[in-house]
Amino acid sequence: MKAVPDCIFCKIASGQLPCEKILEDEYSLAFMDIGPVVLGHTLLVPRQHGETIEDLPEDTAAGMLKNLPRLVRAVRLGTGCEGVNVLQNNGRIAGQVVPHVHFHIIPRDKGSEFQFNWPAGRYEEGQMQEIAGNIRDNL
Amino acid sequence: MKAVPDCIFCKIASGQLPCEKILEDEYSLAFMDIGPVVLGHTLLVPRQHGETIEDLPEDTAAGMLKNLPRLVRAVRLGTGCEGVNVLQNNGRIAGQVVPHVHFHIIPRDKGSEFQFNWPAGRYEEGQMQEIAGNIRDNL
Repeated sequence: MKAVPDCIFCKIASGQLPCEKILEDEYSLAFMDIGPVVLGHTLLVPRQHGETIEDLPEDTAAGMLKNLPRLVRAVRLGTGCEGVNVLQNNGRIAGQVVPHVHFHIIPRDKGSEFQFNWPAGRYEEGQMQEIAGNIRDNL
Repeated sequence: MKAVPDCIFCKIASGQLPCEKILEDEYSLAFMDIGPVVLGHTLLVPRQHGETIEDLPEDTAAGMLKNLPRLVRAVRLGTGCEGVNVLQNNGRIAGQVVPHVHFHIIPRDKGSEFQFNWPAGRYEEGQMQEIAGNIRDNL
């Protein structure tokens, strides 16, 4: 597994930097975020470096993300929260700060300080089909 | 695959309801969200019904989520956006509306209407270790 110099999550994955570990396996590592948006905020990262999710091979994505059901359950039961958000940001514009893929597991309760809006809109006639065609062309 | 009556995503997965499909395989289906928070907003859902991610077997999670790298890339290239958020909400308190697991793929650009805050805090001494212990006890 090639580590990227100066990548903080590569250093955590290789043991060069400490973390409060929750689980680890061949593909991934989960540990506490030291700057939690909610108490219990946990990160799931691949051992393999990739800046965004686009950089991960399918088997790495699958190997890492098979842990999500178990990890989300443990975060919920361990913190006693009511709900959980799973959030993964690609690119600075999307809120990514550390350039090594990571999934945020964020406990949610009434009054949680972490919030997002949901400005659901509608497509004009034909617009959804056109955009979908552009997306399919890039698969 | 057991479909749940009156579940809109089970009906889409089985073909009883139409959708603007992006990709499908043995485990999952991706299609356009008809109430997009940003144009190009896409959903990835498992064929197997589960209300939250906790209800999915590991192989279903892995089989569905191996598609994320390819799907995120296609959404980015197909919409021309700069970044992408992947968001999965568990429980109404966390913003979940349809009670069948779904991952939102949300294009992000400067000025996107979809936004979240990031109220990063700090743990008091010993607090992170205590919460981590509680989470590990529930794995």
